[in-house]
Amino acid sequence: MNKAIFYHAGCPVCVSAEESIVDALDRQKYNVEIIHLGEKKEKLAQAEAAGIKSVPALVLDGNVLHINHGADLSALR
Amino acid sequence: MNKAIFYHAGCPVCVSAEESIVDALDRQKYNVEIIHLGEKKEKLAQAEAAGIKSVPALVLDGNVLHINHGADLSALR
Repeated sequence: MNKAIFYHAGCPVCVSAEESIVDALDRQKYNVEIIHLGEKKEKLAQAEAAGIKSVPALVLDGNVLHINHGADLSALR
Repeated sequence: MNKAIFYHAGCPVCVSAEESIVDALDRQKYNVEIIHLGEKKEKLAQAEAAGIKSVPALVLDGNVLHINHGADLSALR
């Protein structure tokens, strides 16, 4: 099973992106995890290490896709 | 069937995004079309009307998701 992680911060841009992209992923191929960085600040280091600069972002098998722009990661500290 | 359109311009950022996101879409739910705007300049107006500002971009049921940043649409004219 492949791994997909959607990082967001609860912002309107994030919610809109989540509603479309997370729903569109093939759940037969991807195990999808959703992480709210506003609520789980302990995950910020993990997001940063993955290469995430802003949210919303989707990490597919380690490949970072920044989707639109809600907030810079630095604004969530 | 829902409609997904992936717009790109053949740039490295586009190809990388295409390889991950297009493959991850649920083909049971989405009919996926891929449009190379560098080769099909007649589709630029359609992309612009959809709200696309840069490529690569994925339009899911009319909802525009700009994925990372390869090139501004204005650079493709």
